[in-house]
Amino acid sequence: MSAPPARSPRVGVWLIGARGSVATTVVAGCAALTAGLHPPTGLVTEGPEFADSGLPALSSLVFGGHDTTDCPLPKRAEQLAAGGVMPHRLPVAVAAELAAADREITTGGPLPGDTRTAEELIAAFTEDLRGFVRRNDLARAVVVNVASTEPVATGDDLPPSSLYAAAALRAGCPYVNFTPSTGLHHPALAGRAAAGGLPYAGRDGKTGQTLLRAALGPMFAQRALAVRAWSGTNLLGGGDGAALADPAAAAAKNAGKERVLADTLGTVPEGEVHIDDVPALGDWKTAWDHIAFDGFLGTRMVLQTTWQGCDSALAAPLVLDLARLVARAHETGRSGPLGELAFFFKDPVGTAPAALAAQYAELVDFARQLGETR
Amino acid sequence: MSAPPARSPRVGVWLIGARGSVATTVVAGCAALTAGLHPPTGLVTEGPEFADSGLPALSSLVFGGHDTTDCPLPKRAEQLAAGGVMPHRLPVAVAAELAAADREITTGGPLPGDTRTAEELIAAFTEDLRGFVRRNDLARAVVVNVASTEPVATGDDLPPSSLYAAAALRAGCPYVNFTPSTGLHHPALAGRAAAGGLPYAGRDGKTGQTLLRAALGPMFAQRALAVRAWSGTNLLGGGDGAALADPAAAAAKNAGKERVLADTLGTVPEGEVHIDDVPALGDWKTAWDHIAFDGFLGTRMVLQTTWQGCDSALAAPLVLDLARLVARAHETGRSGPLGELAFFFKDPVGTAPAALAAQYAELVDFARQLGETR
Amino acid sequence: MSAPPARSPRVGVWLIGARGSVATTVVAGCAALTAGLHPPTGLVTEGPEFADSGLPALSSLVFGGHDTTDCPLPKRAEQLAAGGVMPHRLPVAVAAELAAADREITTGGPLPGDTRTAEELIAAFTEDLRGFVRRNDLARAVVVNVASTEPVATGDDLPPSSLYAAAALRAGCPYVNFTPSTGLHHPALAGRAAAGGLPYAGRDGKTGQTLLRAALGPMFAQRALAVRAWSGTNLLGGGDGAALADPAAAAAKNAGKERVLADTLGTVPEGEVHIDDVPALGDWKTAWDHIAFDGFLGTRMVLQTTWQGCDSALAAPLVLDLARLVARAHETGRSGPLGELAFFFKDPVGTAPAALAAQYAELVDFARQLGETR
Amino acid sequence: MSAPPARSPRVGVWLIGARGSVATTVVAGCAALTAGLHPPTGLVTEGPEFADSGLPALSSLVFGGHDTTDCPLPKRAEQLAAGGVMPHRLPVAVAAELAAADREITTGGPLPGDTRTAEELIAAFTEDLRGFVRRNDLARAVVVNVASTEPVATGDDLPPSSLYAAAALRAGCPYVNFTPSTGLHHPALAGRAAAGGLPYAGRDGKTGQTLLRAALGPMFAQRALAVRAWSGTNLLGGGDGAALADPAAAAAKNAGKERVLADTLGTVPEGEVHIDDVPALGDWKTAWDHIAFDGFLGTRMVLQTTWQGCDSALAAPLVLDLARLVARAHETGRSGPLGELAFFFKDPVGTAPAALAAQYAELVDFARQLGETR
Repeated sequence: MSAPPARSPRVGVWLIGARGSVATTVVAGCAALTAGLHPPTGLVTEGPEFADSGLPALSSLVFGGHDTTDCPLPKRAEQLAAGGVMPHRLPVAVAAELAAADREITTGGPLPGDTRTAEELIAAFTEDLRGFVRRNDLARAVVVNVASTEPVATGDDLPPSSLYAAAALRAGCPYVNFTPSTGLHHPALAGRAAAGGLPYAGRDGKTGQTLLRAALGPMFAQRALAVRAWSGTNLLGGGDGAALADPAAAAAKNAGKERVLADTLGTVPEGEVHIDDVPALGDWKTAWDHIAFDGFLGTRMVLQTTWQGCDSALAAPLVLDLARLVARAHETGRSGPLGELAFFFKDPVGTAPAALAAQYAELVDFARQLGETR
Repeated sequence: MSAPPARSPRVGVWLIGARGSVATTVVAGCAALTAGLHPPTGLVTEGPEFADSGLPALSSLVFGGHDTTDCPLPKRAEQLAAGGVMPHRLPVAVAAELAAADREITTGGPLPGDTRTAEELIAAFTEDLRGFVRRNDLARAVVVNVASTEPVATGDDLPPSSLYAAAALRAGCPYVNFTPSTGLHHPALAGRAAAGGLPYAGRDGKTGQTLLRAALGPMFAQRALAVRAWSGTNLLGGGDGAALADPAAAAAKNAGKERVLADTLGTVPEGEVHIDDVPALGDWKTAWDHIAFDGFLGTRMVLQTTWQGCDSALAAPLVLDLARLVARAHETGRSGPLGELAFFFKDPVGTAPAALAAQYAELVDFARQLGETR
Repeated sequence: MSAPPARSPRVGVWLIGARGSVATTVVAGCAALTAGLHPPTGLVTEGPEFADSGLPALSSLVFGGHDTTDCPLPKRAEQLAAGGVMPHRLPVAVAAELAAADREITTGGPLPGDTRTAEELIAAFTEDLRGFVRRNDLARAVVVNVASTEPVATGDDLPPSSLYAAAALRAGCPYVNFTPSTGLHHPALAGRAAAGGLPYAGRDGKTGQTLLRAALGPMFAQRALAVRAWSGTNLLGGGDGAALADPAAAAAKNAGKERVLADTLGTVPEGEVHIDDVPALGDWKTAWDHIAFDGFLGTRMVLQTTWQGCDSALAAPLVLDLARLVARAHETGRSGPLGELAFFFKDPVGTAPAALAAQYAELVDFARQLGETR
Repeated sequence: MSAPPARSPRVGVWLIGARGSVATTVVAGCAALTAGLHPPTGLVTEGPEFADSGLPALSSLVFGGHDTTDCPLPKRAEQLAAGGVMPHRLPVAVAAELAAADREITTGGPLPGDTRTAEELIAAFTEDLRGFVRRNDLARAVVVNVASTEPVATGDDLPPSSLYAAAALRAGCPYVNFTPSTGLHHPALAGRAAAGGLPYAGRDGKTGQTLLRAALGPMFAQRALAVRAWSGTNLLGGGDGAALADPAAAAAKNAGKERVLADTLGTVPEGEVHIDDVPALGDWKTAWDHIAFDGFLGTRMVLQTTWQGCDSALAAPLVLDLARLVARAHETGRSGPLGELAFFFKDPVGTAPAALAAQYAELVDFARQLGETR
């Protein structure tokens, strides 16, 4: 498994959206695994392929972050346990770790009525990050955006996700964008990202429907089956459903989903993707896909898939994986877009294959390389 | 595309079960593609990866085979067109090619009341094969078993599929077992297969549920998601449904399906596989899979898939692929089990990876090697 | 079965949208049943409950109609047969009947560039109807709207569907609106409909998703299960998909779908309905419904349904049913909205129960009453 | 709502299988509703149609029963809450009521090695019932079988379910068989049941797949759609899955399921029903149905349904409904098979319609009649 925790220097994980469902599950889950309360199901980096990569141990991770709400993490964890996202006794069992992370959560912004300029906000966030590193004597801190999806940015102004990303650059922190929000993908940040000497990864974690599409698309291509229409409907409860019911926010998400099909199939099939806000589903989501394809001599066939998952439970271990991998990439001196982490994303940075198996092969190879660097 | 047809020597494809749905679709489809009536949807070997492999052109293939029924191929094709397996006008358009193949179909055996010994039957089948090669001046002939699935063999007697396989060996013909029947997998044939100097491939074409499982199993493994139960139900019309309603025949098929899960997941999950005979479905089949898996912190999630396909249309292009690949393997002097063709099978011979993507990579590599041999 | 055809007076069926898929299937299917080529599957009024209702025999029906396109019916039938909507040999077998109906199809309107006023159009359509009745010596003619769905009407102008409906009133013809278009539901026609002394029925045939909802909604209500969200996605090929991809047209359709849920459940659950245009599906449609409900002590459960049907084949027999029932209602002197036909509609006229079983009971009772009238 | 509890005489509910999941949910749920902790979701008899039927109030019910295991009810409730069958805090909130019921649970039989004769067992069970009534000063007690399904009885011996049923008769208690086990349906008990002057109901609660079939079957029949094949697969965890993995036990259950189709469709379609034991599903079950049907002109269509429910949560409120209805039937002097309760059962006693809506109409009428009796 991972390297002995005793010798690991401490590594920070700074979560944008630190009081959300994903962040809360990340903090509680890391504590549960460190305490041996649960096996590391869903955590890719606990597999044998990563044992010698020099990744920071789970026990060495220190959590903090920005958020604009103020519900304490222990209370959020109680809410998630009531909704079945985590076991009922877990919030109590890891109460100390939740409280510790809660103390490292700072108010982000801009808040309603906030009159600070973009530069002032970036400066404030940068100072928050530096304080986190200093207070906790961290070898480094990785900034991970797990906030609700923003509407697609229009105009020149930096959206909030980009303000946080700019602060990460300025504070010398590697950056991961687990959402489809703009983050580092803003023209005004391109130069800084290139010059910053920091590794970064994103966008938009691949946790359900798109994960499936990345696994199934190559099957159709390899078998020379002609996909004519690939239609999908997502039913989401929780905050994500409400955020994505905004067509502008959904547009960002859907672009990633379509890219996966185009890249794995080589063509863009007919079909739309819907994202519905269904509060009754709570933290659960259901994705239905209907794939109409032609076989030999034009025979029409259909595959349907229904994926019922808990978004936070799917996302949280990947956030831990990414924080560990990007921290190690930073430690080994890598910089720029980490295309090797495309396995985790709908719309990966850098150059990367689209087929899930090929992405996994690249990831395993990257893990090996990380281990070779001293 | 494939090499210029004019220079290709003629290559035989000898189908065991030559009057069945799959065989009829193979013959009609090959003629339709050669005539340019349809694009090569579903035909893997028409992809650019195989353009330089030296495979025999579709137009160079000559069909014949054994069967124990006597419905003429043109009439079988009409029946399949009425059931939607092929376009309505196709049987008329390729009537000449169907009639030509029909003339090369010989009665197999043993028929009810047949008193010939196993040795006599093998000798007769061998002579049939030699006559086919001689009459048509073939460079070689590949024997492909596409007959209905036999019950699992018990006792020492060679089942019919093994009699045909023995005849292929004796006639010097490469052999492909597209069914779960015994074929070459009989202890009494093991020595002959090893000593025969002939390439062979099998068993049991991967056309629907198992294809999906081979694509999805690795996704769960790579994401460290714990599959707890994988249950499946297959509804089959046509002759295959009736054959597999026999529990002994189904047992052979299910062994292949389970092997895929065990090999890709690394564990054997709970869950059964049912195969139901539903004549109302005609040549169509529906496969429902229900996969219960655990995510982070033990959260329970479910994926369901429903695959609605036409078995003959899924199988036929793969039979053409296999005949071409195995013929070329023979031409280049290869012998023994072709594990490189695992992409096509539920229960592959030789050593082979279980994940579909890895199987495809091996296949493409094999195609490259076939092209390098002169 | 139905009354002896010899004595039946001839009854006209005037189809608005007479060259569409539904109309073509109506004409071909009626001819096929009259000729004994097919059993009356899908035809409600051929059941024993309707044997003594005095309905016009299928053989007594004479078809005509308006359309704005000019593809001849025999050719439309060939297209539908190629798409699997009717058997391949049927267009030839009923070619005479298709040609006869084709001769009774007149150009409707307004066509692009048409400068006729609403009054002029109504007058022309009325004359078309009168000519049809006169030429064919019909006892009566029922007008049935099966044209593509119009956008929701805004403003005071009569949309085309209302022009045709007004012409039906003026010509003394009973009227059936099988679509969600406005038809008689226009304020300017309300007075005329009430004063016209004619029976009418509508709106929007219940052929798939809404049929299912009307069967399943009552189950949840009777079992006191609390439906929290009912979400649906429809994938439609054919012309209907394109028409309903217009949000204004879809709005009309969805209003009917939601009414069914509200009326059968007693509450309006969360959830949206999507209608996607997927040309690859041809004349077929797929409807997926996801129903999240609470059971005892708040336990969360889910029902999902997937309906794969051929819209024209579902609608056509109901059009024949409605034409026969409304013709008989007219013969027996009934007038005004026929709420007793709610079984057939998403958004029924008059007062009617919402549960499918209750609607069927009303229909059977109506059939009995029709038989008692002399 | 129900009549004022203060004046209600106390009514016993004696559960065969009193420590099982269903029984535990019945006891905990009744207490939760009486305490106002939950709305009566899933409880049919709390609807307005039953308000004047004179049913015993939930608060007047007293629970006891037989079982052959000894896990205390409070502990069983904890297990069920951990599996999501009931809210996590409920076992504590109703601990007193669970403990009270637990004290009234007596060891049933025959236990392994039990040498008592059938007559001795019946006598012992009868005495247990009489003691329960006496100790609690009950106006009457209804015996409800919710034990695991037995294998189909062969031979003359009374199976355990029939021993308990015989004891109910002897003790003068109305009887409800919520399982497919034999119970009163044994030839040796027929005379006693007829002569006993007691009302009884059964068999086999309709909680999922068969409930759906009873709602959907009539839809196909009313629309004259020809169902050609109706296939189903059930995945069950919990004890029920293991019990029904025994083909003999499954046979009993499947007979009921098939009866529903035959009775609502008027024909027996092709198709099988599978019941798989999938322990990973815990107390949850998934039922997939695939219905192949023909529409107009033989067009082939398909409906699929997937039902994901919690068996205990579906069954428990119906057990309360039945206990109340049968107790009131007894109070009003009714005896013999209560066909009016067919709404609740797969394989109802007496004469009853098969369509769910018709069964519900009969139930509501029965409720009215119960209220008229004084």
